[in-house]
Amino acid sequence: MLLCILSIIICVVGLYLLFEAMYGRYTQELGVYAKEEAARLRDGGGPRRGASVRGRAAQILEYEKDPCAKCQLCASRCQKFLISRVGEDWIFLILLGLLMALVSWVMDYAIAFCQEAQKWMYSGLDSNMLLQYIAWVTYPVVLITFSAGFTQILSPQAVGSGIPEMKTILRGVVLKEYLTFKTFVAKVIGLTCALGSGMPLGKEGPFVHVASLCAALLSKFMVALFGGTYMNEMRNTEMLSAACAVGVGCCFAAPIGGVLFSIEVTSTFFAVRNYWRGFFAATFSAFIFRVLAVLNQEEETITALFKTRFRLDFPFDLQELPAFAVLGIACGFGGALFVYLNRLIVECMRKQKTINKFLLRKRLVYPAMVTLLISTLTFPPGFGQFMAGQLTQHESLVALFDNRTWCRHGVAEEFEYIGHSHGWKHPHVNVFITLILFIIMKFWMSAVATTMPVPCGAFMPVFLIGAAFGRLVGEVMATMFPDGIHADGRVYPIVPGGYAVVGAAALSGAVTHTVSTAVIVFELTGQISHILPVMIAVILANAVAQSLQPSLYDSIIRIKKLPYLPELGMGHHEKYNIRVEDIMVREVRYITLSSSYRGLQEVVQTSQLKTLALVESQESMILLGSIERIQLQSLLSIQLGRQRRLDHLSQLAQDNGTQHHHHLSSLASDSTPSSPCIDPHARITNAAAAPAAAAAATTTTTTTTISEWEEQQLDDPVDFKNCKIDPAPFQLVERTSLHKTHTIFSLLGLDHAYVTSIGRLVGVVSLKELRKAIEGSVTVTGVKVRPPLASFRDSGNSTNVSDITDLHKLWVRHRGHSLPREPTPPEKKAITCQKCIWFDIVKASIGF
Amino acid sequence: MLLCILSIIICVVGLYLLFEAMYGRYTQELGVYAKEEAARLRDGGGPRRGASVRGRAAQILEYEKDPCAKCQLCASRCQKFLISRVGEDWIFLILLGLLMALVSWVMDYAIAFCQEAQKWMYSGLDSNMLLQYIAWVTYPVVLITFSAGFTQILSPQAVGSGIPEMKTILRGVVLKEYLTFKTFVAKVIGLTCALGSGMPLGKEGPFVHVASLCAALLSKFMVALFGGTYMNEMRNTEMLSAACAVGVGCCFAAPIGGVLFSIEVTSTFFAVRNYWRGFFAATFSAFIFRVLAVLNQEEETITALFKTRFRLDFPFDLQELPAFAVLGIACGFGGALFVYLNRLIVECMRKQKTINKFLLRKRLVYPAMVTLLISTLTFPPGFGQFMAGQLTQHESLVALFDNRTWCRHGVAEEFEYIGHSHGWKHPHVNVFITLILFIIMKFWMSAVATTMPVPCGAFMPVFLIGAAFGRLVGEVMATMFPDGIHADGRVYPIVPGGYAVVGAAALSGAVTHTVSTAVIVFELTGQISHILPVMIAVILANAVAQSLQPSLYDSIIRIKKLPYLPELGMGHHEKYNIRVEDIMVREVRYITLSSSYRGLQEVVQTSQLKTLALVESQESMILLGSIERIQLQSLLSIQLGRQRRLDHLSQLAQDNGTQHHHHLSSLASDSTPSSPCIDPHARITNAAAAPAAAAAATTTTTTTTISEWEEQQLDDPVDFKNCKIDPAPFQLVERTSLHKTHTIFSLLGLDHAYVTSIGRLVGVVSLKELRKAIEGSVTVTGVKVRPPLASFRDSGNSTNVSDITDLHKLWVRHRGHSLPREPTPPEKKAITCQKCIWFDIVKASIGF
Repeated sequence: MLLCILSIIICVVGLYLLFEAMYGRYTQELGVYAKEEAARLRDGGGPRRGASVRGRAAQILEYEKDPCAKCQLCASRCQKFLISRVGEDWIFLILLGLLMALVSWVMDYAIAFCQEAQKWMYSGLDSNMLLQYIAWVTYPVVLITFSAGFTQILSPQAVGSGIPEMKTILRGVVLKEYLTFKTFVAKVIGLTCALGSGMPLGKEGPFVHVASLCAALLSKFMVALFGGTYMNEMRNTEMLSAACAVGVGCCFAAPIGGVLFSIEVTSTFFAVRNYWRGFFAATFSAFIFRVLAVLNQEEETITALFKTRFRLDFPFDLQELPAFAVLGIACGFGGALFVYLNRLIVECMRKQKTINKFLLRKRLVYPAMVTLLISTLTFPPGFGQFMAGQLTQHESLVALFDNRTWCRHGVAEEFEYIGHSHGWKHPHVNVFITLILFIIMKFWMSAVATTMPVPCGAFMPVFLIGAAFGRLVGEVMATMFPDGIHADGRVYPIVPGGYAVVGAAALSGAVTHTVSTAVIVFELTGQISHILPVMIAVILANAVAQSLQPSLYDSIIRIKKLPYLPELGMGHHEKYNIRVEDIMVREVRYITLSSSYRGLQEVVQTSQLKTLALVESQESMILLGSIERIQLQSLLSIQLGRQRRLDHLSQLAQDNGTQHHHHLSSLASDSTPSSPCIDPHARITNAAAAPAAAAAATTTTTTTTISEWEEQQLDDPVDFKNCKIDPAPFQLVERTSLHKTHTIFSLLGLDHAYVTSIGRLVGVVSLKELRKAIEGSVTVTGVKVRPPLASFRDSGNSTNVSDITDLHKLWVRHRGHSLPREPTPPEKKAITCQKCIWFDIVKASIGF
Repeated sequence: MLLCILSIIICVVGLYLLFEAMYGRYTQELGVYAKEEAARLRDGGGPRRGASVRGRAAQILEYEKDPCAKCQLCASRCQKFLISRVGEDWIFLILLGLLMALVSWVMDYAIAFCQEAQKWMYSGLDSNMLLQYIAWVTYPVVLITFSAGFTQILSPQAVGSGIPEMKTILRGVVLKEYLTFKTFVAKVIGLTCALGSGMPLGKEGPFVHVASLCAALLSKFMVALFGGTYMNEMRNTEMLSAACAVGVGCCFAAPIGGVLFSIEVTSTFFAVRNYWRGFFAATFSAFIFRVLAVLNQEEETITALFKTRFRLDFPFDLQELPAFAVLGIACGFGGALFVYLNRLIVECMRKQKTINKFLLRKRLVYPAMVTLLISTLTFPPGFGQFMAGQLTQHESLVALFDNRTWCRHGVAEEFEYIGHSHGWKHPHVNVFITLILFIIMKFWMSAVATTMPVPCGAFMPVFLIGAAFGRLVGEVMATMFPDGIHADGRVYPIVPGGYAVVGAAALSGAVTHTVSTAVIVFELTGQISHILPVMIAVILANAVAQSLQPSLYDSIIRIKKLPYLPELGMGHHEKYNIRVEDIMVREVRYITLSSSYRGLQEVVQTSQLKTLALVESQESMILLGSIERIQLQSLLSIQLGRQRRLDHLSQLAQDNGTQHHHHLSSLASDSTPSSPCIDPHARITNAAAAPAAAAAATTTTTTTTISEWEEQQLDDPVDFKNCKIDPAPFQLVERTSLHKTHTIFSLLGLDHAYVTSIGRLVGVVSLKELRKAIEGSVTVTGVKVRPPLASFRDSGNSTNVSDITDLHKLWVRHRGHSLPREPTPPEKKAITCQKCIWFDIVKASIGF
C-alpha cells in the first residue's frame, strides 16, 4: 500500500515534468540529447562498439583482465577470493531472484490498483453515461500519455518489449544506455502505467528487460562491494541470460517455461552449463513471488496463477485431436498475420510523410490517439458490451480457462454466470458472436497498441486472443458433439476450457516462434493433462508461422535495424550449397608490415572500416592480424603529433638558432589540411594554441618546411611497436558453406571474419554480407531458390528486399575506387532518414 | 502377441548360438574379432578418426561435398531437389518418431510378457518352496546370461547405457560400430531380455542409443532412397540430437522432459534452431506410443504413464517446503553416493587381479552371479517379503505414487491394501522398516546391476529408489503431523505421494546432474501441482551432487576413457585465471615450406601426432596450416616410391645400357631399411616382387647406388602440390583463459588448437592438456585450488589423478628427445591393459 502511494507520488512528479516538457523544453532537450548522443558515438562509441563485436578470441585481452594479476604478491588472499566467488554466484542469483520477485509483485500490486481505480471511477459515475465515458476514456489516455512522455524524457531505450534488444546484447553487441538505472526507472514506472491503463499490452517482454537491468545494476553493486570480480564479460553474459529467464519466470510464476522461453527467444547457441543458473534464479524468483501472495493473504498456498480445474480422468478423447490440430494450424496463420499486421502499421506510418511529420513533431499524440480509439471501442455500455469490454486481461483469461461449457446444445441457456463469466453474456447476442467480435477487435487492437512508444510486450494480448479463439473452437465442438465424441460407456463431454488453453499456447507460440509456450501454459494453469494436444497444436502453429513470417522479435529487430544475424529457418537447406566465396568481399583493405605512414594515411582516409587486416607483405598476403582504425589513427597522430613536431623544431632551432616561439607553436598546432588525426585531445591543445597560431599567420616559410617535414615523416615505415594488434582475427577457409559460416558467426558472436586460403588473405565476410545472403538475395548458380510459401513473406519484406538491392547497387558502383564496406555510415543514416517516429532516437542511441 | 512369439523364437535361436559359443567358438571368435578390429584401426581407423575430430572448419572439405556439384548441368532438377528436401526433414522425423514408438511399444509388450511369465511360473509352483525358488531364480539368470552372451557375440558396443557414447558422438568423435544394424539388433533384444528379467535396470539410456541407431539406419535408408542428401555430417548430428530426444521422450511418454533431458545429458552447447526437431519428433513419438496403448484397449484415452491423483486445491503447505528442501539435499548426497558406489564396483573388479582374470575368462559368470544374488535376495517368501520383492518396477512406482497415506497416526491400520500396495504390507513388520529395507537393498542392487555387461540404464532404478525415499519422508511427515501443518480453517492432511514424486525427481536429477527430471515427473504423473517443491528439491540435489561427484554418465565416460572433454562444473571459477600458456605444449613438431624430404622423414619417424603444423620458415614461424601425418607418409612414399625408382633405373639403364632386369626389380622392391613409408599397397607390391629380390640378393653395387639415390632424393625440397593441407587449423591467442579455451573446444568440437602470437606458432593445446587442466592437476601460481567439498571427490578419483601424474612424468621424460604427444598409442593400450572385464573390447572398437 505504502509502495503504491510512493509510486503515485512518483507519477505525479513525473506528470509535472511531462507538462513542462510538452511546452518547449521537451523538444529542445531531445535535440540536445540527440546531438550529445551523436557526438559521443563519433568520439568514443565507434571503437568501443568495434571492440565489442570483434571476435571473441580477441576480447579476452580486454575483458578477462585477471583480477589477481595486480596482486600477485598476495597469493593466499587471492586463493581465498577465488573460493569465495563460488558462493557469490549463488548469492547473486538469489539476490536477483529476490529483487525481481519484489519488483514483479509490487508492479502487479500497482497495476491492479490502477485498474481498480478505473473500475471504481467507472462504476461510481453510473448515473451519467457521458461522465462515465469520459472517466473510462480519460484515465487510460492520461496513463499512456504519461508513460510515453516519461520514458521519452528519462530514457527512450525503455520503449518497447526489450527482448529484441536483449537478444542483440546476448549476441555480444553492446547497446549503449540499455542497462542503466535511468532505463530501469523509466521501464518500471512506464510499464506500470501502461499496464494499469488496461490497454491490450503485455508485460513479459519488458520484464525480461527489467530483469536484465536488475542483473546489470546488481552486478555493478556487487563490483562496488566485492571489487573487480564482476567485471568479467563472460560472467556478465551468463548472468544476463539467467536474468532473462528470471524475467519470464516471475512474470508468469513459471520457472521452467520461463527458462525455456528465454532460451528460445534470446539465444542461438545455448551453453548447457548455464542452464542451472536460469533454473535456480527463476525458481527462486517464482517461489518468492508466490510466497508474497500467500503472505499477503491473497492465496491460501502456492498455486498456479490461472489455475484450471479440468477433470483428470478423461481430459480429451483421441478423436478430438484433429480439432486440436486444426486449431494449431489456424493459430499459426493467425500468428503470422499478427506479426505482419504489426510490421505493416509501423511501416505505413513511416512511409506516409505527412502523418510521419506530424507525429514526429507531436510525439505524444500517437499513443493518446490510439488509446482513445481503443478505450472508446471497449467502453462497456457502448460497443464494449459485445466484446467483454469491462474485463481486464486477467479476468478474461480466468473466464476463458473456465472448465464449464458456456454453450451447450447450441443455446447459451445453461451458461452459469459466476465470477467473470458474466462479461461474456449479452441478453441479445449469442456467446459465439461475442467471442468472434472479441477476437477480431482484440487482434487489431493488440497489433496497434504494441506499436505505441511505451514499455510494452505483445505476449499477453496474443495469449488472450489465442485463448478466446480456442474457447470459440471448443464451444463450437461442444455444440457439435453435445454428448462428447467418446462412443462406448460413460459420457465425457468436451471441455472447451481445454481448447482455450491449447489455443493460447498455440497462438503465442506462433507469434514468438517458440514451443516453450506449451510449458508456460502448463505452469500457468497448474495442469498438464492436455499435454499432447498442446504440443501438437504448438508445433503445427510454429511450422505454419515460421514458414510465413519471422517471429515478432525478429520482426522488431528488422524494423529497428539492430545488428543481429537472422536465424536460418526451418527449411533453408539451400544454405548448405552457398559457399563463403559467393558472398565474401574480395577487395580487402589491408596494411602490410612494411607499409609507410603514407599508405596508412591513405587507408585511414579512404575506408570507413572499424578494423583493418594486417598482412605480411603485398606479395605473400599472409594474414598476421587485424588492427583497429583508432589504433592506426593514433599511430599517425603520434608520427605527426605535437611532441615530434616540437622535437623537430627544437632540432631546427638548434640548427638555425633564430626561431621565434611563435613559429614553434604554429608548427605544433597541427593546422595543415593533410593531417588526418582527429584526436580530441589534440584538438583541445590546438584550441589553446589558437591565439598564438593566429598571431603567427604570416610565417609562410616555416609552413613549407613543415609540409616538407610531414612528407618526410609520411615516407617512414610504420613502427607497429606501440600498436595493439589483434593477433587472431577469426579466419574462415574457402569453400565453407553458408550454413557453417552462420553457425560460426552466431556461436562466436563475430562481426566479421577474414577468408583465408593457406594463410593468404583472400576476402572478408561481415555480418552485412551474411545477413544479405541469408535473406535470400544471393542465389545458388544464379537461380533464386524460393522457400515454399515464400510469396506471403516477400510481400511482407518488400522494403527490406529493395533496401538490399539498393545497397548492392551502391556496392557495385563504389567497388571500383573507394570500396566503402559500410556504404552509409550508421550515425549519418540515423540522422538523415527521419522517417520514423521514435525509432530514430533509439537508433541513434545504439549507434545504428 | 505375434511379435512376442517372434521374439521368443529369436531368443531360442540366440540361446543355441550362445551355447555353441560358450564352448570354444566364442572365445576364438572374440580373439579374431579383436585382431580384426585392431588391424582395421591400424590401417584405416587412424586417419578416419583423425579426420573426425579435426577442426570443424576443415571437415567441410570432406563432409559437405555438394550433392549438386556432380549435376551442374541439370540445374532445374537440382532446384526441385532442394525444395523437396524441406519436406524430407519432416518425413524423416515422422518416420523416426513412428519407428521408435513402435519399437518402444513392442519392447514394452515383450518385457511385460517376460515379467508375466515369471510371475505365472512363480505362482504356479506355490506348492513347493524349493521349486518356486528355483523358478524365481533361474528365469532371470537365464535371461540375463542370454542377454550378456547375445550382445557379446553380436555387438559388444550394445553393452551399457549408450548415453555416454552418444554424448561423445555428438561432440564430433566417430565411435566405430556404434551405429550399425548389428548393434541395433543386439541392443533391442538384449535390453528386452535384461528388463524382462526383473532386475533393477533401466531402459532410458539404452533407448537413447536405440533411437540414435534408428536415426542412423533410417538415414542410410533415406540415402539409398533419395541419393546423397543425407550424407551431410551436420545434418546427421542434428538428426542424432533429435533422436536422443525421441529416445527419452518415448521411453517415458514425456516429450518435453525428454527433449530437455537429452539436451542436458548429451550437449555442451545446444543450437536452439534444432530445438523444434527434438520437440516435433519426441511429441510425435510419444503420441504414437500412447495411441498404440489406446488402440490396444489398454487405456481409454491418452494419459500419463504413472498417473497420480493428488488433490488440486491445496497440494502442499508453505511450511512443508523445508521438508522438501531437506529431501532434496539428502537425495543429492544419495545420488553422489550412487555414482561413487557404481564406479567403486567397476574399479574394484578391475584391480583385483585374480577376480579379474577369472571373470575375463568366463565372461558370463559375472552377470549370472549378480543376478543369482539379487534374485535370491528378492525371493518373495524369503527376504523379499520385507522389501516388496514380488513387485516389478512399474508396480512399485504406481504404489509409491499413490495419493493415500499408508501410515496414519504412527500405525499402519488405516492402510487400505488395494492394488499393488499389498506388496508393502507385512503382518509383523512396520511399513517404515519395509521402506527402509527396500531403499537400502535396491540402492546397492541397482549400483551392482548396472555394472553387468548387458544393455541397461540406471535412470529407472534410481527413480524408484528416490520415490521410495520420498515416500518414507512423506510417511514420517504424515506421522509427525497427522492433521497437516496448516493451522487455520480446513484441515489438509499431508500427501506422502507428493513426497514420493519429489524424491524420485531429486534422486534421478542428482545421479544424472540434470534439472529436467522435474519436467519428466510432471509428464509421467500428469500433474504439475507440486512444481515448486520438485524444482527446489531438484536444484538442491543437483547443487549437492555436482559438488561431490561427476554425473553417472561422465563417470562412465571416465571409466571407459572415451575421448570427451569434462564439463566445467558449477563453482570452478579458478578456470578464469588459468591461461592457455600455462597448459600448452611449447615444443611443437612442425614442417616448414622449405623442408627437405629428410626433415619430413625425421618428423614422421619421431612423432606420433596425427597432424603436424606447417609454418612458413623456421625463423618466421608463421602458421600456414596443418597436414595430416598420412599425407606426409604418402608424400614420402611417392618421393621414394616404386614408380620413381623405376624411372630412375630406366634412366640409369639408358645411361649405362648394361643393367639386368633383376637389378631393376630389386631396386624397385624398396627393401632398404631407411625407407620410412609403411604404405600397405607398396607392401603388397613388394611381396609380389620378393622372389625377384631374393634372386638378386648379391647385387650389392646396385644397392649402394640405390642408397645414394635415396639420399639424393631425401635432400630434395618437399613438393607440397599434391598434399592436402588443412588451411585453417584452429588458432588460439596467447592469454586466452582456460574457461574460454574450454568453451571454444566444446563449441567447435576441436581436438587440438595451435596457440599463436601475431601469426607465429608458439604452442599447441590438445584435448589431453585441456582435460588435465580441468581435472585440476594444473594450478594457478603453484597453489592447487581445491573446490569446496573436494575431499570426497578426490578419494573417488584417486586412480584418475595418479593416471594423470604418470602421464605427466612420461611427458617430462620424453620431452627432451622424441616428444610423443600421445605417449601410449591408443591401440596398443587397448591390447596391453587387459584389466577390465568387458571394456577392453569396447575400447578396441572405439580406438582407445
